[in-house]
Amino acid sequence: MSVDSLQAKIRAFKNPTALGMDIQPDLIPRSILDGAFLEFGDSPKALAEGYVAFGLEILDRLKALIPAVKFNTGYYDALGAEGFAAMQRLCAAAKSMGYYVIIETMRSDFEEVAALNAQTYFGSLKTGAAETTFFDADSLCVSAFLGSDGIKPYLPYCKEQEKSLFILAKTPNKSSREVQDLISGDRVIYTVMTDLAMRWGNNLLAQNGYSQIGVVVGATHPTVLRELRGKYDRLFFLVPGYDAQGGGAKEVQHAFDKFGHGALVCAAHSILGAWKKEDADGCDFTERAYDAAMKIKRDIAQYVTVI
Amino acid sequence: MSVDSLQAKIRAFKNPTALGMDIQPDLIPRSILDGAFLEFGDSPKALAEGYVAFGLEILDRLKALIPAVKFNTGYYDALGAEGFAAMQRLCAAAKSMGYYVIIETMRSDFEEVAALNAQTYFGSLKTGAAETTFFDADSLCVSAFLGSDGIKPYLPYCKEQEKSLFILAKTPNKSSREVQDLISGDRVIYTVMTDLAMRWGNNLLAQNGYSQIGVVVGATHPTVLRELRGKYDRLFFLVPGYDAQGGGAKEVQHAFDKFGHGALVCAAHSILGAWKKEDADGCDFTERAYDAAMKIKRDIAQYVTVI
Repeated sequence: MSVDSLQAKIRAFKNPTALGMDIQPDLIPRSILDGAFLEFGDSPKALAEGYVAFGLEILDRLKALIPAVKFNTGYYDALGAEGFAAMQRLCAAAKSMGYYVIIETMRSDFEEVAALNAQTYFGSLKTGAAETTFFDADSLCVSAFLGSDGIKPYLPYCKEQEKSLFILAKTPNKSSREVQDLISGDRVIYTVMTDLAMRWGNNLLAQNGYSQIGVVVGATHPTVLRELRGKYDRLFFLVPGYDAQGGGAKEVQHAFDKFGHGALVCAAHSILGAWKKEDADGCDFTERAYDAAMKIKRDIAQYVTVI
Repeated sequence: MSVDSLQAKIRAFKNPTALGMDIQPDLIPRSILDGAFLEFGDSPKALAEGYVAFGLEILDRLKALIPAVKFNTGYYDALGAEGFAAMQRLCAAAKSMGYYVIIETMRSDFEEVAALNAQTYFGSLKTGAAETTFFDADSLCVSAFLGSDGIKPYLPYCKEQEKSLFILAKTPNKSSREVQDLISGDRVIYTVMTDLAMRWGNNLLAQNGYSQIGVVVGATHPTVLRELRGKYDRLFFLVPGYDAQGGGAKEVQHAFDKFGHGALVCAAHSILGAWKKEDADGCDFTERAYDAAMKIKRDIAQYVTVI
C-alpha cells in the first residue's frame, strides 16, 4: 500500500493516528490471561495466546476508527518463537481488516542483513517449492546509523511493491539529544537523517507528493516538528511518543501540512491500557480503548483538520 | 561471563577471533539441506533444521580453536519462528561448549523495549510459576542512536551478571561514513559513541582493566582502530568485517593493546563457506572451516601476539 493509500485512508477516517501494538502482560485484562494460562499452562505460549486474543479484539473494535497499526518487534521477541508467531497472526489480522501495517525493527544493518530483513518483513522466503510470507508489512521503521548500505536493499520493495520506510530522525525519548541533536557543519544529526531520507526517496514519490521514504520525529519535539515540516514538504512523518511520552495534540499539530496531511501520530499505552484507569476488571477494555482512541482523534482535530 | 573471562579464554586459545554464525542456505552443503527437506518437507522448519545441523557441526569442530561466537538475529528472523527456535538451540549448544556468546541485534530502542530486549537476551521471562530463559547470552551488540535511555536497561545485567555490551561506533561498511564520520565540535560521531560507551561503563570495569561496555569498530578502518586504541585503553573492541568485507590481519592488528588484548575479530563467511572454494560437495565442510579458522588465527598471529 503506498503512502497515497495511507493518506487516503487517513482522509476517509479523518483520523491521522496509528495504534501502537505495544502489548505487555500488565495491559491485558486478567480474565484473558487466566483463560490462556488455563488452556496452555504456565508458558510463553499461553502469554502469546493472551497477546493475540487481546490484540485481535482491540484491532477489530478500532478498525473503522484508526487507519494504521504499528508493531515493534521487541514486544513480541520477548515471548520467544511464540511471540514471533503471535505477531504474525496479529499482523495478518490487521492487514485483513484494512489497517496500514507498520513494523518497527529499530535496526540499522549491514547490506546482507538488511536484504534479509526486507525479505522477512516485506517479501517471502522460498524453501524448495514452497514460499512463506511472514508479514507482507506495508512499512518498516528502521535506523540508518550505518548509512545507505543498510537502506538500499529495502528500496526495490518500495519501488515495485509500494512499501514504505520510516527512518529514525529525532526520536521522542529524552536522551535522543545525546546523538541526534549534535551539530555537524550547518546541520543537526536529525537533519542529516532527513536529508538521507530525501535522497533515498528521490525516485519514490507518491501521487500526493509525499515520498515512500519518510522519517520518525517524536511528538515531544514540537519545534523540531515545525522546523522539519517547513523544510521538507515531501517527507511523511511518523510521530511516536503521543501521550505516554509526553507529546500531546498541541505539540503534534506541527507535524502536518496545511491540508492536515503528511503525518501519522502513534499512540499505544493510552489506548491499550485505557481500561486500567478506572480500577476496573477490564471486561470493557475494547470500549475503553475505543473511547481513548476517539478522544485522541478529537484532541488532534482541535488543532488539525484533515482535508 | 565477564570480559575477564573472555580475555582469559582468548589467552588460553591464543586466538582473538570470534565466529560469526551468519548462516544462509547457500553456505550449507547440499547433503545437509536435502536431508532436512526430506524429513520436514518444503518449509521454513526444514531450513531451520538445516541451519541447526550445519551450525552444530561447525561449533563442535571449532570449540577448541575459537573462543567466541556471534549471532546476528537477522539471519534467524529470516526463517520466522522456526529461525528464532533454531538460534536458541545453537546459542545453547555454543554456551555448553564454552563459547562466549554474543548476540547482535543492531537495535537502538526506547527504554521500555530495551528493557524487554535485555530480558529476552540476557534474562528470563516469567509466565505464572514458570520461567523461560531464551538465550542467556554473554554479550549483546546494539546501536546507541537513541542515547542513554536505550542502553541503561542493560546495565544492571552488566553489573550483576557480568554481561557485556558492544556499542556500534564505526561499522565496517563503506557507507558508515555518511553518519559515523561526521564531525561535531572536536569529535567525530564514532567518538561520540566511544565516549558514551566509556560513560556507561564507568562503574563496570573488569579486573583486566577493560570495561564491560565495549564498542564495535570495523576491520576495514585501520586508522580508526589505531586512533581509538590509542585513546581508549578501557574499551574492548569487537571488530567485524574481517575478510569478507575487506579487512585483513594487517588492518586488525591496530585493534589490540601491547599485550595483544582488548579486541575480538569476527569472521563468518570465510569460515562457514570455506568448503565452497574448492568446487566440492561440502562433505568436508567442518575440516575446511577448521582450516580456514586456523589460517585466520595464524594470519593474525603474524601481527599480534596474545600474551
